[in-house]
Amino acid sequence: MSRYPADTDAQAFRIPVLAVVGVGLIGGSLALSLKRHGVAGEVLGLSHDPVSLQKALELGIIDRVADFEDIVQADVVVVATPVSAVEAVFKAIVPFLQPHALLTDVCSTKQQVIAVARRVLGKRIGQFVPGHPIAGAETSGPQAAQAFLYEQKQVILTPLPENHPEQTDLLTRLWEACGSTVCIQDAATHDRIFASVSHMPHFLSALYMYSLLDADQADLKLKYAGSGFRDFTRIAAGAPIMWRDIFSSNRDCMLEEITRFQRCLEQARQLLESNNTEAFEAWLTAAAQARRDWENSPT
Amino acid sequence: MSRYPADTDAQAFRIPVLAVVGVGLIGGSLALSLKRHGVAGEVLGLSHDPVSLQKALELGIIDRVADFEDIVQADVVVVATPVSAVEAVFKAIVPFLQPHALLTDVCSTKQQVIAVARRVLGKRIGQFVPGHPIAGAETSGPQAAQAFLYEQKQVILTPLPENHPEQTDLLTRLWEACGSTVCIQDAATHDRIFASVSHMPHFLSALYMYSLLDADQADLKLKYAGSGFRDFTRIAAGAPIMWRDIFSSNRDCMLEEITRFQRCLEQARQLLESNNTEAFEAWLTAAAQARRDWENSPT
Repeated sequence: MSRYPADTDAQAFRIPVLAVVGVGLIGGSLALSLKRHGVAGEVLGLSHDPVSLQKALELGIIDRVADFEDIVQADVVVVATPVSAVEAVFKAIVPFLQPHALLTDVCSTKQQVIAVARRVLGKRIGQFVPGHPIAGAETSGPQAAQAFLYEQKQVILTPLPENHPEQTDLLTRLWEACGSTVCIQDAATHDRIFASVSHMPHFLSALYMYSLLDADQADLKLKYAGSGFRDFTRIAAGAPIMWRDIFSSNRDCMLEEITRFQRCLEQARQLLESNNTEAFEAWLTAAAQARRDWENSPT
Repeated sequence: MSRYPADTDAQAFRIPVLAVVGVGLIGGSLALSLKRHGVAGEVLGLSHDPVSLQKALELGIIDRVADFEDIVQADVVVVATPVSAVEAVFKAIVPFLQPHALLTDVCSTKQQVIAVARRVLGKRIGQFVPGHPIAGAETSGPQAAQAFLYEQKQVILTPLPENHPEQTDLLTRLWEACGSTVCIQDAATHDRIFASVSHMPHFLSALYMYSLLDADQADLKLKYAGSGFRDFTRIAAGAPIMWRDIFSSNRDCMLEEITRFQRCLEQARQLLESNNTEAFEAWLTAAAQARRDWENSPT
């Protein structure tokens, strides 16, 4: 039995009590958006960090600071912590999760989170619908949360065979209410895609910053960094623990990406060293064309 | 004897005839800016590409399409071509360069351009003051030119021992009239700095795009690329020939940067492979902190 009317209008349904575990940029923005669109009734906030909770309360992101026991009141529970905290959070939640409640997450990698969920949730696994909003910023914490973060963004759901279609539909409507487009993928495809187009850019951007620091006169050099540098390194400022967890939980895909990049890098270095300008120009042209095509492609 | 009043007010001086060789983003924007600020009298445009010249004329970037013989009329000659074209352009200019005229360039690398200038200009070398505006875009051609491109940007001059201080001052005032801040460096330092903070980001961004194309399902993956990808790869769309020339003319510095990056990349790969999360988090934290410090530093 559903507590939600089978109405296709995203505005028409309501989550009486929403619990958000982790009230930073991602969880906080979701709470703000669902409140603004009248979807969430009461929003409970949980976090290991009392300062973040207090801030989230002050900013109107949550209505009440809650403990895990309060999960019994929740109709939807969103886990918005770094991947490494998910196991402990699931363990703390599961004794209090109502049979009708939907549990979801917002982690950037899905296979490891699903493995953890299977281990911890046991026969409650059908209540967990994994999710990943393709939105973020180089800022973090509740003060970075914004109600519009998910507008015109994509959200990937990687439902499990055990999920009731009604639960997946509910999560779809929740994200659509935030202005997002929802897409269904299997978890392995998801992790491969995002290793390539999200995790690798972050890895390379951060590694470039690190290699710059590793050299002489980094301070002098940084004084002359311009707008290309600004954009290229923006993501390197992202939350280190969150990204450490993403790389580590998507290790196999990342190692494959890194190995391929290392091969391309060594090839390009040799072309430069041997002054093979024709081949060098060819790969630069292919890269530029692909980037322009992407910019101009309708999505 | 100077044809320019020794007035420190940038608005008060005038370049009767400015010649711009290469009327794309960089040269075109300079011409537009100097015209807008009333500094340039007549602007002559030269290019190997008649379509670009016609476009530049239509857009009011230049007043007249000119040939190399017309350089005799010019008080200031700006060479705004890719590095690989500089030698041929200097050879074509030198027979027509008036003894009072200032010759400058806008190339992103300086040592190789200076070596070419010494070879081609001979005893006229003192008339050449090398320059490099730290401004650009991923677009190119006269249609990309904008009068405001150089506002609040840095311009590096790397004067030669043979330059008369009056020529360096004139070039300084020219760039200041465009709203730029001028900084003097020696050419070797310049090339080392910009290999690090400008050329490497472009190289890595383009190489990342290339390695993405090199893998399976590139089209599928690109459909899910988000805002991090957008910023990280923006510079990869830059003009391939210009960048080929930059990398090639700054080869020694680039090879040094690439080698250091390869070392850092292999270290990071090993940390990930061996699941050394502590050391992995440490470098991510150092990178994020450096990027945040840069963003917040007063420049």
